[in-house]
Order: sequence, then structure tokens, then C-alpha cells
Amino acid sequence: MPRLPDALLADFDAGKVPALARAVSIVENHREGYDALLGKLHSRTGRARRIGITGPPGAGKSTVTALLVANYRNAGLKVGVLAVDPTSPFTGGALLGDRVRMEAIALDSGVYIRSMATRGSLGGLAAATREVADVLDAFGFDRILIETVGVGQSELDVARTADSTVVVLVPESGDAIQTLKAGVMEIADIFVVNKADRPGADRLRNDVELMLGLRKGISFENTPGHHGVELKRANPAKVARDAAATESDSWTPPVLSAIAREGKGIQELTDALDRHFAYLERTNTLGERRRERTRERVMELVESGFRRRVWSDEETQHTLEQMLPDIEKRSTTPFNAAEQILEKSARLMSKPREKGH
Amino acid sequence: MPRLPDALLADFDAGKVPALARAVSIVENHREGYDALLGKLHSRTGRARRIGITGPPGAGKSTVTALLVANYRNAGLKVGVLAVDPTSPFTGGALLGDRVRMEAIALDSGVYIRSMATRGSLGGLAAATREVADVLDAFGFDRILIETVGVGQSELDVARTADSTVVVLVPESGDAIQTLKAGVMEIADIFVVNKADRPGADRLRNDVELMLGLRKGISFENTPGHHGVELKRANPAKVARDAAATESDSWTPPVLSAIAREGKGIQELTDALDRHFAYLERTNTLGERRRERTRERVMELVESGFRRRVWSDEETQHTLEQMLPDIEKRSTTPFNAAEQILEKSARLMSKPREKGH
Repeated sequence: MPRLPDALLADFDAGKVPALARAVSIVENHREGYDALLGKLHSRTGRARRIGITGPPGAGKSTVTALLVANYRNAGLKVGVLAVDPTSPFTGGALLGDRVRMEAIALDSGVYIRSMATRGSLGGLAAATREVADVLDAFGFDRILIETVGVGQSELDVARTADSTVVVLVPESGDAIQTLKAGVMEIADIFVVNKADRPGADRLRNDVELMLGLRKGISFENTPGHHGVELKRANPAKVARDAAATESDSWTPPVLSAIAREGKGIQELTDALDRHFAYLERTNTLGERRRERTRERVMELVESGFRRRVWSDEETQHTLEQMLPDIEKRSTTPFNAAEQILEKSARLMSKPREKGH
Repeated sequence: MPRLPDALLADFDAGKVPALARAVSIVENHREGYDALLGKLHSRTGRARRIGITGPPGAGKSTVTALLVANYRNAGLKVGVLAVDPTSPFTGGALLGDRVRMEAIALDSGVYIRSMATRGSLGGLAAATREVADVLDAFGFDRILIETVGVGQSELDVARTADSTVVVLVPESGDAIQTLKAGVMEIADIFVVNKADRPGADRLRNDVELMLGLRKGISFENTPGHHGVELKRANPAKVARDAAATESDSWTPPVLSAIAREGKGIQELTDALDRHFAYLERTNTLGERRRERTRERVMELVESGFRRRVWSDEETQHTLEQMLPDIEKRSTTPFNAAEQILEKSARLMSKPREKGH
């Protein structure tokens, strides 16, 4: 276990894509040594911008993602794509009809595409995504695009691991508005109404803006940001520097239009993402978001470390199995059983390697 | 805290619906004393049949659920409904256009409808659903219907808490087949193709049966069950007793047709559910599923107990906050930080009340 990451790291540092692929596999599947590997990569992370692309199935997330990749490549940036969506063409093996071509591009280490398994990650999908994104970040990608379907709690948690989150909607997704209410509105930094030439697009834009509270009959200058933060008068120089800044330094998610299949609206999205990142940096929201992400990361590791120790311990397994029939006979309760296991778990909390001392 | 559940329990035992509603609230929101309450209710659980109704948004899950409720009421059974779906009419405040009427029915304690919040349940949605279902079970409901949208990991986990799981599909849900691949197939005990008079219904039935492996050119007699279990020749008397049993005593999920809006196909679904439950009992699959559920329940309680102890501890919070800047400066890693917190957590594993001794 200690030598594997070292050999791997040399190739990884040399920018070799097979080493990247191997590192991602080790981390994604939590193979032996994955934590040591991530620990070593940690000092190289923090440079990439992480962008979440979410929305209901069929909204065109993959097309938007592919076009963003092309835009960033034209600007000379390296791009990693994590597809965390079982219905994504990325996952299904096709990107704009040709995954092979994309993988050929990936060989020049300018683009790397990886689909994430959406099941079986006991530690949680969001944790796994964050870890793989860390690997891509350490490898030197400038942008990491995380595509995830915007329905379901774990999927929203995935979106929350990004610096900026784009929500893609289509006029047909009438039901989507219902779904949006269940969490997506709060995580959106930018909305894209895709297939904007179809009937209902104006209505959808209107609905989203209504939900954002922009059209409640309150004049714009006095509207607090959607996070409920009070407005402050901003330095006019700042406003000039950033055309999208409102008079305050709060962020109001723009509602953009796009026809992704024709490439329309993608430059506007790229620009909005740049403005959003500038806003995050200017207001130190980036620092706060990343601090929160680091906190969640440590908490996840503490909890998964506990789970690994307690459930791999044979004595605990034995105690658990012995108590199950009693619980079923109602002679004890699940709470009492859990309490006993917790009390006995204290001895498992020191580092396993210390057992030998 | 110790007296509250006792007073509540007397009313609960007397079958008073306000006591039920209060018990559900205490448990759903993990208010103080919820664990003592659940512990006391534990001996009364285990009688209800739990039925999961899942499927993509718009498949008609709520209509199917409402009609099942009516069927069970006609048979004199008490029914609890847990709606764990942000897009469900149950949750939105309307059941077949009239939630008030349903709540009036609920006052005779024959039907009780409760929508579950799908966010903010830190211990997990599945755990919260199971706990509330335990409360309904203890109150004496014969059937507990759990309606959940079949997209997303946490939602699938919810479905997994049921004895029998019904997956509702509609011809329009072409994309749904993709989604199905991501986990729904494995949890389905019964399929219902709803809106079966619409174009594409036969195609959908066909697709589902293909995915079930029934039509792969292998003759039916030699096809193993979808769990990959080998067939055994069964007692012919059993087959006669149960018209739906295949020659083996494995269960092949039937693919039923329904037009729920017209009430068509619901009796067939009710019958199939009875057959499935008979199968579960006959083969002791019920015992195994409930054993597995008890095991998961204890594991959840151990893990949530750990989380509560470690994250509510001020010293741990302080340690965590102090380490975050070092992690950001890359002078330590999230893994080292987690290790330190885990080692220090051992002292928190004995019961909090023992502190006073």
C-alpha cells in the first residue's frame, strides 16, 4: 500500500493520463491506499474551478456541458468532466454521438471524461464526486464540470460540491418547476432555459424569475438578494469593472436563454460563469464555500472512518447478529442494541496500526 | 422528556388521532424523547404490511395509491399513507382534488395521510420514513402505503424499507427506462403500466419484460428468477393454491396493466400484492427482509448516535474549526484531521447520562 501511490504519483506528476485514470479508479472505488493517495494529492488541489451542471432528464445538460468544454478548450484551458447521471450520454457511452473521439482528445490531457457510478457508494455520492474532483484538480485541470440530474437528494448534494451551479431547464419540463421547488432553486447560481425557441420558453423564464422573487412588484433597487442578504451601495468603480454586478454586491442568478443544439447561448453562459466566479472571489464567498466544503469533507471522513471501524470489527458484527432475534421478539429495542454497540465501539477509535504497539 | 411519551402513549393506545399526529411529528423531527417513544412503540410493531409505490414523476402514483386505499377500506382494513415525494398531490395539499375530505376520513382513524419532508433529514430520508412507518404500524394500521418518486438514491432507499414494492410506469416515460436501469428494476416486486390505453403501452410492457429477462429466447421453465436463484420444482398443491406461483417458488415480478383514472387494474394490483405477501410468508422471504431491515435499523441508530455525540461535542467542534485553516494552507490533510477527531471521540461513546456519575 505505501509504495503503490509513490510509483503512481511520479507518473501522475508527469501528466500521464493512464496514471490519472488509475488514480481516479483507486479513489472512486476506495481501493486500498486511496486515502494515502488523496492525502498526498491534497497539497496540489484548490486551483480548479468546479462547475455543476444540473437539471431534469432531457433538459440538454450533456449538450451544454460538451459546448462548455469546447469553449474552454478554445481558450486553452484543460477540462475535466464528471458525469454523475445514469441517463447522461456521457455515461451511456456517447458524447455528441462520438465518445471515442472525445477519448482521443482526452489523450492530450486537455479533456478528461469520467462517469461516476451512482449506486453503491456507501459513503455517499457527493463524497465520492468530491474526491474524484480533487484528483482531477490535483492533475491540473482548470475547469471541472460536474453533470448531475437535478432530482433527488443525493444528486443535489453532488451539485453542492461545486463553486458555481448551472441549472438547465427546458420549456417541456413543466413538472420540473415542481421539482425545482424541492431544493434546486436554492443551489442555482445561473439558470439556462434551453431550447429557447420552443413554445413555453418565455413562460418558463417568467416562472423562474417569479420564483427568484424578481417580479413581486418590488422595485429592483430595493430587492434583497435571493439569499436574503441586505443590499449595500457598492463602489461605482466595481460596477464599472463588472458589468453584471448589481448595485449591491449580492448575486442574483441570471436566467439565460440557449439553443444548445445550435450552439446558441453558450458564450453567454461562459461569460456568466466568469462573472459568477469573479463575484465569488471579490466577496470572499469562494473562501466561505470552500471552507464549508473542507468542513463537510472532514466530517464525512470522520463518519466514514467510524463506519469502517465499527462494521469491520468481528466482535461488533457478532454482537449485532446476536441481538437481532431479541429485537424481533420485542425483548429489546433497536435503541438499546445500538447503545450497546456504541459503548463497545470506544476501543476501536484509536488508529488500527497502533494495535501492534 | 420521560413523562411526555407516557401521557402521549395513553392517548395513542386509546386510538386518538391527535396523539398519533403528535407522535409522528416528534419522531419525524427527532424532537426530544423521540427515541424513548419509538422504543416504547417497538413492541407493538411488526403487524402492518408495508407497500412501496414508486415510479417517475407523472406516472400516476398518487392515483394508484388513492385507489388502493379505497380498496383496502372496502375490505375493512386501516390504511396509513406516507407521501415521500415533493411532486405528489398528497404533499402538495390535494388528494384527488380534495385533501380536506381525506383528512375527514382520517379522523375515523381508518385512513391517515402524512407527507414527509424530503430534505433536511440528516439521518437520511429512508431512516425517517421507516421510523414514521413504525409509528403507524404501532397505531394499528393494517397497510402502510409509502409513495416515493423513483429517481435518486435516497428515494430508492425509501422504497427498500417496504415489504412489497410496486413500480408504476406510463408509456410516455420513455426516458424512464433509462432511469429504471439505475436501480429501480432490482427493487420492483410488481410493475404497473398505467395509462395502458395510450400508444406505446405494449412496447413499454415488452421493454420491462425484456429487462426482467423473460424474453431472452430461453424457455420459461428454465429461466432462473430475476434474483438469479436456481429454480426448484415446487409442490403442485402449492401451485394450485396460488395461481400466480410459477413452477418454482421464486417470484417473477408481474407486469400489470392499469388505467388508474378509470379505476381499471387496481383490483388486479391488490390481488398481486396479496399473492406477493403470501409468497414472502411462505418462503420466509418476509422474515429475511425484516431481519435485514432490523439490521439496517440498528446500524442507522449506531451511526446517527455517533454523529450526534461527536458533532454536538464542543471540544470536537473547536478542534475541527481550528484545523480547517491548516487544511486550506495544505499543512495538514483532511485525513489527518479526521483521524485526530476520531481518536478523541472514544470518550464520547458511553451514555451521556453516565457523565453525572
